[in-house]
Amino acid sequence: MTLPPALAARLVRIDDAADIRIADYRDIRDRDLVARGGFIAEGTVVLDHLLRSGRFRPTSLFLLKSRVAGLAGRLALVPDDVPIFVAEGPVMDRAAGFAIHRGVLAHAVDRTAGRIEGDLAKFGGEADGLSEFLARSRRAGGPLVVAIGLANHDNVGALFRNAAAFGASGLVLDGASCHPLYRKAIRVSVGTALTLPFHHGADVEAIWRGLEHSGHRPLALSPRGETDLAAVKPGDGLALCLGSEGTGLPEELLARAETVRIPMAPGIDSLNVATTAAIVLSRLYSAA
Amino acid sequence: MTLPPALAARLVRIDDAADIRIADYRDIRDRDLVARGGFIAEGTVVLDHLLRSGRFRPTSLFLLKSRVAGLAGRLALVPDDVPIFVAEGPVMDRAAGFAIHRGVLAHAVDRTAGRIEGDLAKFGGEADGLSEFLARSRRAGGPLVVAIGLANHDNVGALFRNAAAFGASGLVLDGASCHPLYRKAIRVSVGTALTLPFHHGADVEAIWRGLEHSGHRPLALSPRGETDLAAVKPGDGLALCLGSEGTGLPEELLARAETVRIPMAPGIDSLNVATTAAIVLSRLYSAA
Repeated sequence: MTLPPALAARLVRIDDAADIRIADYRDIRDRDLVARGGFIAEGTVVLDHLLRSGRFRPTSLFLLKSRVAGLAGRLALVPDDVPIFVAEGPVMDRAAGFAIHRGVLAHAVDRTAGRIEGDLAKFGGEADGLSEFLARSRRAGGPLVVAIGLANHDNVGALFRNAAAFGASGLVLDGASCHPLYRKAIRVSVGTALTLPFHHGADVEAIWRGLEHSGHRPLALSPRGETDLAAVKPGDGLALCLGSEGTGLPEELLARAETVRIPMAPGIDSLNVATTAAIVLSRLYSAA
Repeated sequence: MTLPPALAARLVRIDDAADIRIADYRDIRDRDLVARGGFIAEGTVVLDHLLRSGRFRPTSLFLLKSRVAGLAGRLALVPDDVPIFVAEGPVMDRAAGFAIHRGVLAHAVDRTAGRIEGDLAKFGGEADGLSEFLARSRRAGGPLVVAIGLANHDNVGALFRNAAAFGASGLVLDGASCHPLYRKAIRVSVGTALTLPFHHGADVEAIWRGLEHSGHRPLALSPRGETDLAAVKPGDGLALCLGSEGTGLPEELLARAETVRIPMAPGIDSLNVATTAAIVLSRLYSAA
């Protein structure tokens, strides 16, 4: 397969894993990438989400040479000023620090924040902008998902995937939850972490006050919830609040919200948090 | 904390990671343990399921010394002829080949099969006994879950967890699906792989004929399913059939079953397979 000449002309060949031009891809297994002011998107599905995203923009792509021809259509969508680095497998794996089977990487940043050095809490304006985010979510329709203390990357990624599947307006994650732009969270989200609006980093109390102010109706999921899921009335402005499997939601929050339980077989009292969200959101989506 | 004398007397102290008595715990990250005729249960919750199980029995326990006192109650339930090995962290980690944070391991075998060497397909009588298994599941009530081609350990484990949460009678997994007794599958199942009845190893055609013979009503989940989940009539003998995310269910099977779809937001056409099961089973459980 011959490459379109315009594409062939912009490819930048990399022969050395230590090349300074691919420094953004160095040791990306490392979890502190977000704190360095950017993030890595892996695989074609995630790349598609990145290219569609309004909030994030790629700063470069890094591809396995053998994948380029098959990606020609997509690569035409990559803005001209974004370099496309190309390498053979061993160079790519050595740079990344582990085997990149998919052969498709992109480094991206948040347009709204630019490149912020070493301040995770402010990346993407997380700690600020909560009320604006909530007001926008309230207008957008569709339930909002609120995650408190979700430290597991897989769970956060799966939560995005399920929220996107059932038309959620966005996600609010408190500062104790893992950042949605960690590599693994993005991957498990199947790219939806890049297209579903989110706010990360506020504390529980601020989130709670924000929900009251924006006129959301908080539903708190708990095995001891008062209302059976089947009896929950759908409607505008629902905010589905979820805690971690181990500790659940804070008591103060449960005391002030409409608490909901999912009926389960005797002796079982918990589900994975992203699975819980899927069950509830699916039910609300079908009832709407 | 002082140990009950009867417990203290049966503890077997291990000081050497190469000790032949703990050979069953050597390099347990290795995925071929099941083929060696046994499996490893990790953590207290899984241990509880193992001790409750009718099908499986522990052949030994291997505990971190510091965990013994806290486990005294549980250990009283361990049959007298099952040795309880105890070691310090470094010995345990060196034997297992990685860091055992939970400090609680058990090696177990299938009572129905005894110790079978090197024949995964027959472990637990998997390839045989399908019709008997299906007939029993049909009598037990609750939906049966049928997994085709689920090669991912996390997905199989999560499928068990969700099936148990919503009263499924059991699981049938074809030979292309991963074995539920792999360490990671057991862990993700939160132990339910040891208490929920399952049959592993038959081929798709045999499963299909078996379901017809046992009088199950197969529901095949597919993004292109004809019936909306909300319109599925609950009832006895449902068999919820799930394929892998990538390839889905075989066309022949879809052509012969009642096909069901979960309504999703525009542009989204897939969910994680265990999440799909949870949504459907939760709905059936509430409707029953």
